[in-house]
Amino acid sequence: MTAEQVVKALNKVRKNSPLVHNITNYVVMNNTANALLAIGASPVMAHAINEVEDMVGIASSLVINMGTLSEKWVDAMLLAGKKASEKGTPIIFDPVGVGATPYRTQVAKQIIETCKPNIIRGNASEIMALTNSNVTTKGVDSTESSNAAVDAAKLLAESKNAIVVISGETDFITNGKEVISIGNGDPLMTKVTGMGCTATAIIGAFAGVEEDIFFAATSAMAIMGIAGEFAAQKSAGPGTMQINFLDTLYTLNENEILNTFRHE
Amino acid sequence: MTAEQVVKALNKVRKNSPLVHNITNYVVMNNTANALLAIGASPVMAHAINEVEDMVGIASSLVINMGTLSEKWVDAMLLAGKKASEKGTPIIFDPVGVGATPYRTQVAKQIIETCKPNIIRGNASEIMALTNSNVTTKGVDSTESSNAAVDAAKLLAESKNAIVVISGETDFITNGKEVISIGNGDPLMTKVTGMGCTATAIIGAFAGVEEDIFFAATSAMAIMGIAGEFAAQKSAGPGTMQINFLDTLYTLNENEILNTFRHE
Amino acid sequence: MTAEQVVKALNKVRKNSPLVHNITNYVVMNNTANALLAIGASPVMAHAINEVEDMVGIASSLVINMGTLSEKWVDAMLLAGKKASEKGTPIIFDPVGVGATPYRTQVAKQIIETCKPNIIRGNASEIMALTNSNVTTKGVDSTESSNAAVDAAKLLAESKNAIVVISGETDFITNGKEVISIGNGDPLMTKVTGMGCTATAIIGAFAGVEEDIFFAATSAMAIMGIAGEFAAQKSAGPGTMQINFLDTLYTLNENEILNTFRHE
Repeated sequence: MTAEQVVKALNKVRKNSPLVHNITNYVVMNNTANALLAIGASPVMAHAINEVEDMVGIASSLVINMGTLSEKWVDAMLLAGKKASEKGTPIIFDPVGVGATPYRTQVAKQIIETCKPNIIRGNASEIMALTNSNVTTKGVDSTESSNAAVDAAKLLAESKNAIVVISGETDFITNGKEVISIGNGDPLMTKVTGMGCTATAIIGAFAGVEEDIFFAATSAMAIMGIAGEFAAQKSAGPGTMQINFLDTLYTLNENEILNTFRHE
Repeated sequence: MTAEQVVKALNKVRKNSPLVHNITNYVVMNNTANALLAIGASPVMAHAINEVEDMVGIASSLVINMGTLSEKWVDAMLLAGKKASEKGTPIIFDPVGVGATPYRTQVAKQIIETCKPNIIRGNASEIMALTNSNVTTKGVDSTESSNAAVDAAKLLAESKNAIVVISGETDFITNGKEVISIGNGDPLMTKVTGMGCTATAIIGAFAGVEEDIFFAATSAMAIMGIAGEFAAQKSAGPGTMQINFLDTLYTLNENEILNTFRHE
Repeated sequence: MTAEQVVKALNKVRKNSPLVHNITNYVVMNNTANALLAIGASPVMAHAINEVEDMVGIASSLVINMGTLSEKWVDAMLLAGKKASEKGTPIIFDPVGVGATPYRTQVAKQIIETCKPNIIRGNASEIMALTNSNVTTKGVDSTESSNAAVDAAKLLAESKNAIVVISGETDFITNGKEVISIGNGDPLMTKVTGMGCTATAIIGAFAGVEEDIFFAATSAMAIMGIAGEFAAQKSAGPGTMQINFLDTLYTLNENEILNTFRHE
């Protein structure tokens, strides 16, 4: 994948402004909506049983994030996911904190079985928890990254027929066979809550305009990392980082992408 | 209406610090609370069936916003709205995304019939959806604005005996007969999530101190637009915009209002 | 208590990165998570009946905040609180808006009786409402502070065997016998929503690493006040204040604490 292709994908998001339907957690809803607006997409947050199927019906993609899950919300996720799956609308799933509690693990597996997400994004320990790899999760901000995690991601991708994304110091995106790694990003991103959730939503935007979802996921992670780098340069800490990140998503231009993208 | 009157109304909000009871959506709660604090009002967020009537009982106004609606929340909105209606406490209603799904449209109509809001604020497509005008809503960030929308607003205002506000490049405020238009604002406001919801809450603050609700709604929209202009001048994108907007609401002074207010 | 001890406590938080389990309100979740990350702690937000006990099981402290309470959330708070109490995990309780409605007052008392929090933090009117002192609460942003409030705090601390913290222009921390007062802080903090809730969460971080909870609460309030002062100096209003506060929590160093801490 080339930087030119990433630029093209970003321009497509900005031009088409895909409607991204999010069923996500309370902590990050505001950030997620702002990040989607900044990138040029059109966010909608809706979780009522009475409307999620209709909302999926008009959306370009569906993002399911289980950060602050509870029973009614899980019901809505499953309903929306089934509808999206039937319609062929891309589903992006963020198994926040999977492995931290048995309930969380059970729900993550249920969502994967029922909704068959096209893309799954987590940090290394979350992806490993999904494959029952030998790992203990501490909360939701682990950034552990390793060959074991990539192996788990490939296994998960293959068995679930999905693209799997691991966020971390290096991001890994795999379809089960190929693995693309992206070196962009900045450690300050881990000090802002919901940056991973934002990545998942941004993937939703790209998957809403690109048929090739492996490419969509990779482009989105490239933009996240590049924007993170530029934002960190201007930031005195995690507060300004959060704000500068949104500004950067909004202003990021071709040259900045061409000169900064680092991948293998 | 004159700029001097807007200044007076703002001073009244800052001096009286009205308690604004919000039953609003998860995405914008933080922004809404911060905007109300910045303008000098006193925000409270409460949605439990067990307390909304008591909270309305001590509030100067009630803001109902259906952005992330679900059944229990709608029950609370209806209960709070009925109580406010009985007490004569001004009700401001934000029909977020009405028209996007049948459920959303049904709930919006139910709230209007049951609670009889004094002021309804939406974007052009939301106001048109409320009058069954021929329009399709795409999410919640549409900024379409037109004569048709103003006609719909007048019709709605007259039939529901309410002030109707359309936010957009130009804001329109109508009591069904007169229409005031405000030219202040900046396109960057549309790139920050919940700016419309903030407008609704700010109207709540003004309606909490001004008996003339047509004037309250107009003053609030003037302050929103003027603050938006000043904030945009200092902002590099939607992230800094969100922050500078709060600073500006807090610091906005008489001269800035007198020199900037544009209306017809 | 000395400034050197506060520095040591902060370093312990940064080094040990305690997992703080929050069951808190929708308005402040994002701020709370970001403040905990900025101070070096590891936040987790979880409220499902199906998982709160498991989450408490891996947490270093539990923060219960009733800002936007409803029945299901109260059930989760009680369940998590009982588990933490059994395990000896420190519980910090924020009775947001207690006294504003009968429901709020009833729930606050129920949480105190059932969960036996180790630390209770509120503003003066909230603490007085908990002791049935003669006071009427107006919303949740009152900053009234007085000898009467300190007397109420001492009474509450003694009768509930808890540390009680009053936030205000001067902060008071008492174990029922001794009272420590902290003079740090800035009025601009009252114009940012959820600063009190952030204080409660930061206390949770310190209580997660310090056995002496009186000292933990005092250190946390010192850091809040000092960070607030530095942040205010750089801020043009409540918007930038919110952001600069997070940056300051992240960058605050030994000398800044040693030169600024004011207490009696």
